Amino acid sequence: MTKRDFIDGFSKLSKDERLAILAEAMEDPKEFITEMKDYRFSDSALQEKFEHFSENTISNYHLPFSIAPNFKIDGETYHIPMVTEESSVVAAASNAAKYWFDKGGFTTEEVSTTKYGHIHFFWQGSRDELDSLFNKLEKDLPERLKNITKRMDERGGGIQEIWLSDKTYELENYYQMGLSFDTVDSMGANFINSVLEKASYELENEAETAYPGKLEVVMSILSNYAPASRITLKLECPVEELEDASPLLNGSEFAEKFRRAVEISHHSVSRAVTHNKGIMNGVDAVVIATGNDFRAIEAGVHAFAIDKGTYSSLTNCEINNGIFTFSITIPLALGTVGGLTSLHPLASRALEILGHPKAKNLMSIVAAVGLASNFSAIRSLITSGIQQGHMKLHLENILMTLDPPENIKAKAKEEFKNRDVSYSEVKEFIDKQS
Amino acid sequence: MTKRDFIDGFSKLSKDERLAILAEAMEDPKEFITEMKDYRFSDSALQEKFEHFSENTISNYHLPFSIAPNFKIDGETYHIPMVTEESSVVAAASNAAKYWFDKGGFTTEEVSTTKYGHIHFFWQGSRDELDSLFNKLEKDLPERLKNITKRMDERGGGIQEIWLSDKTYELENYYQMGLSFDTVDSMGANFINSVLEKASYELENEAETAYPGKLEVVMSILSNYAPASRITLKLECPVEELEDASPLLNGSEFAEKFRRAVEISHHSVSRAVTHNKGIMNGVDAVVIATGNDFRAIEAGVHAFAIDKGTYSSLTNCEINNGIFTFSITIPLALGTVGGLTSLHPLASRALEILGHPKAKNLMSIVAAVGLASNFSAIRSLITSGIQQGHMKLHLENILMTLDPPENIKAKAKEEFKNRDVSYSEVKEFIDKQS
Repeated sequence: MTKRDFIDGFSKLSKDERLAILAEAMEDPKEFITEMKDYRFSDSALQEKFEHFSENTISNYHLPFSIAPNFKIDGETYHIPMVTEESSVVAAASNAAKYWFDKGGFTTEEVSTTKYGHIHFFWQGSRDELDSLFNKLEKDLPERLKNITKRMDERGGGIQEIWLSDKTYELENYYQMGLSFDTVDSMGANFINSVLEKASYELENEAETAYPGKLEVVMSILSNYAPASRITLKLECPVEELEDASPLLNGSEFAEKFRRAVEISHHSVSRAVTHNKGIMNGVDAVVIATGNDFRAIEAGVHAFAIDKGTYSSLTNCEINNGIFTFSITIPLALGTVGGLTSLHPLASRALEILGHPKAKNLMSIVAAVGLASNFSAIRSLITSGIQQGHMKLHLENILMTLDPPENIKAKAKEEFKNRDVSYSEVKEFIDKQS
Repeated sequence: MTKRDFIDGFSKLSKDERLAILAEAMEDPKEFITEMKDYRFSDSALQEKFEHFSENTISNYHLPFSIAPNFKIDGETYHIPMVTEESSVVAAASNAAKYWFDKGGFTTEEVSTTKYGHIHFFWQGSRDELDSLFNKLEKDLPERLKNITKRMDERGGGIQEIWLSDKTYELENYYQMGLSFDTVDSMGANFINSVLEKASYELENEAETAYPGKLEVVMSILSNYAPASRITLKLECPVEELEDASPLLNGSEFAEKFRRAVEISHHSVSRAVTHNKGIMNGVDAVVIATGNDFRAIEAGVHAFAIDKGTYSSLTNCEINNGIFTFSITIPLALGTVGGLTSLHPLASRALEILGHPKAKNLMSIVAAVGLASNFSAIRSLITSGIQQGHMKLHLENILMTLDPPENIKAKAKEEFKNRDVSYSEVKEFIDKQS
């Protein structure tokens, strides 16, 4: 292995120069360069488009673009684009969608789309002085920010409220100026941050004039904690319609065991984290496909999952008067215009496949895939377990990579039918046969 | 817009048949099919390999594959592969790496790699009966699971401990059988779940023999809550060496303002969520590049962020005796063998670029990128704000897509230099010029 040294001016090099330098430390430099180039588009304009999403690019990274068909959501049928590297996520979502299609599908209960941002500052003056400063700004700011908010106002969004939060019980002299926003169909991060930075500039100016030296803004930024940008969506049917949910349990046994599994995720952090992780398998796959930012969604979702004081499940299950109800409440600050949605050609196609949804529709779609993922995961966990299916898919992946003759493939499938599967063991088994 | 109907047997169709059906609802069916096919590999064996990662595939989804060069971590230099669609994430990480290179770089303080899994069950018998059942199993299980654990044992890992948790104060009759694992260099999800499902089978059998009808296993699964698979890593230098961190502040002003920004993220949930989201921008980009599961990492990280009772920052900043210390403590259950690491050709190349790290090294690398991302974000926030840089990159992306003549590009850059940038406004501006 060659030593990896400091590289000067990496960002100023061409992508081929970057590859050449990295190649020096590889086992087979030529093969490395050839392979990494193979993953680029032959159309150089298209390649450049993808390179502009990030910096210091050397090639592209590919993930499978899949479809989970037949989601009935609020009476409409959707075939949902999903991008994930994890096997069985798309299959699980699709199975749940199909299962619930004739049972009425997914129904949106409630949607809200308010987003927040804050100016975080320290104030050395009196509370009265700060109040008078704030009262003036609260009145003047909308006009002074007009230049930035004009377009959003015209689209029906903009700044909703402005308030002052005293956080001095948390930290000496610490205050927040909070703003809430409606960003219509855009996720709105750039809009919100631009407004906040301008508002922060106005706050500093105002303070410097009236009370010099008393205010220090530390930072101004939107919050990914988005509890007021959330959706509740449900699946519901009579318990007896769950007769076909499992070959091992009758409808009411299935419903009851399912309910208990969800209940556990409200009483065990260890389980809740994995329970929600499974929801996010589906959620993120649609978030990525549609050009949204999955780190923002993840942060908002998990922080919301502790709103009751301990980390808990995003989904709920109830059985009342013979009716089985399975629902999800999840914060989803999503956009269907702006950002990458029109710049990434595949995100743009994903939105076209969904019929150009509004942001609120996309929230329903993403929440439905999350709830579907959870339904399938729990159904597997309380009946056959999840390993049987996983292992079969994993074995097929490994056999695809090792690509032995058909007769040895068949032998391997027989050998590993009831065993744990690992790449090295399958490889060893195949090597022994050849 | 054509109606989207129920599609029967979608998973059994070929990828071209799937495209054809979806195309019926598109504005321009032919163009849709052509474009989606263009994103596939021309090499059909390679295309099939990617399709096997998931189900119901129609094409590939591309993200830029970038390098953040010059991370000095525990004395070694790494050029780190990152996969992200968000502009300025790679640039920010690279800038921080370069800034800290001559100041000693990143130092790993502590690493642990224990993972957990649980059998969740209800028990209708007495506590004494359950104890006797558990004591027998605790003794016998390692031998009975030998078939599954043999390979992992040989590699130096395996089952560490087995215990019984009484959760009846949470939920009537609810208990957990907990197991801890060392999975060496693999993430180990399949291994852990296979062990748990077999252990659960043994528990059920044993109970059914000794105390029929008293035990019901609801599910058995690993936990993504991984507080014992975590790393602490730091950056440290004398305050006076931070003189060059900002043109606006001297070394000690910068250090103090930086410390206050981190302190705020320990006292405001709104800020903490976004603070950690920025860390995850860097973390996930490396997690994806190396073929690991970012949903698992995200769930574990954010659940860990509330370990002190309220949601808080993953990073800490202290100034003691003129020494500035900035550190991160983050749970990272990562693998460098198994799973997708050897199956996804680009993940495999990413690990080669990193010099085939052990799982613990990869934890240091990922944590370093997270800490670097946080350093750059806070540096921007407390000095120039983040919008200036974002807007410039966003404008360039938009101009790349709209591709007007050079003179109009220049005019647009001038026009939007100090304004908020949106696709529609830039488009309108350009249309007016032409």
